[in-house]
Amino acid sequence: MAGELRGKKVAILAADGVERVELEQPRSAVVDAGADVELLSIHDGEIAARDHDLEDAGTFRVDGLVSQASVDDYDALLLPGGTVNPDQLRMDGDAVSFVRAFFESGKPIGTICHGPWTLVEAGVVEGRRITSWPSVRTDLRNAGATVLDEEVVVDEGLVSSRSPDDLPAFCAKVVEEFAEGPHAQRKAGAAAA
Amino acid sequence: MAGELRGKKVAILAADGVERVELEQPRSAVVDAGADVELLSIHDGEIAARDHDLEDAGTFRVDGLVSQASVDDYDALLLPGGTVNPDQLRMDGDAVSFVRAFFESGKPIGTICHGPWTLVEAGVVEGRRITSWPSVRTDLRNAGATVLDEEVVVDEGLVSSRSPDDLPAFCAKVVEEFAEGPHAQRKAGAAAA
Repeated sequence: MAGELRGKKVAILAADGVERVELEQPRSAVVDAGADVELLSIHDGEIAARDHDLEDAGTFRVDGLVSQASVDDYDALLLPGGTVNPDQLRMDGDAVSFVRAFFESGKPIGTICHGPWTLVEAGVVEGRRITSWPSVRTDLRNAGATVLDEEVVVDEGLVSSRSPDDLPAFCAKVVEEFAEGPHAQRKAGAAAA
Repeated sequence: MAGELRGKKVAILAADGVERVELEQPRSAVVDAGADVELLSIHDGEIAARDHDLEDAGTFRVDGLVSQASVDDYDALLLPGGTVNPDQLRMDGDAVSFVRAFFESGKPIGTICHGPWTLVEAGVVEGRRITSWPSVRTDLRNAGATVLDEEVVVDEGLVSSRSPDDLPAFCAKVVEEFAEGPHAQRKAGAAAA
């Protein structure tokens, strides 16, 4: 099955505080399957990575600003975790708009751990089946999602997992769904905030 | 007005990732007003503090475990911010139960920045007027709170502020409300989760 993402372009959207393995491992999985990958963020230069939220874990080079990115240029989106990362993204109007437009396009999205907070801010989880890190689940339920406690949950091209322990299952399902391509256009709920 | 908290005992509940100034400055304010203070946490030893969420900022010594603490032993509660801090507290059943019991007791509570996430988890913000760091506001609204963008908001003994910039106003109002003592017992909503 190697090469099933050949010709596809994947955006990773992350900010300072991203959990290192949750960016690195899904990125490796889609690159190994043949995809081109770009890291988008809310500032240029590098973003600071973390292990277990609190330990320094180097940096990642940013390829482009989400404020200048278009959903049309990408086939799929990855939203890794790390507590501070989505906390920064959800305060950035460009990042939230990009995620909302990606959701509405029907293109596949993979998110893990704390990543779904940005989906809450984009107002797109109502009525969706999803999983996340335990601390995020009350916020997902309060936003209208159905939260499951499973290693990987798929709902019409939205792939979600709970934690770094789920990365093998998450990466496999991300490659599978990203290869499948867009689902029917999805309708977002009312914008948050 | 020095000494207006003499004889009162204040609990601070925090975990690793606490924003240093948001623990330090309110603690100083209540100590200067004559209160005894204890730092409760979810593990013993020390907790790691942060500046601006991402920079190491030393540690604080833990005085006791929240799992062994009783609301009856305290007159007021402080919940500082820092993104990772409430993210840890809200996953700890003892911490969430303590906060919920404190809320129901009617005793005054002060919270700032990301601190209100623990109140969301405790299911006590529905119908309350509150403020917070911008990233937390959608979660507060989705939990049924009325969110205001003001430097300090008071709702029946629940004092809240947005960020470290608000600390002077927050500390002054915390001392005033903590001196006033308990309000009528408050009714929490349905437990989250």
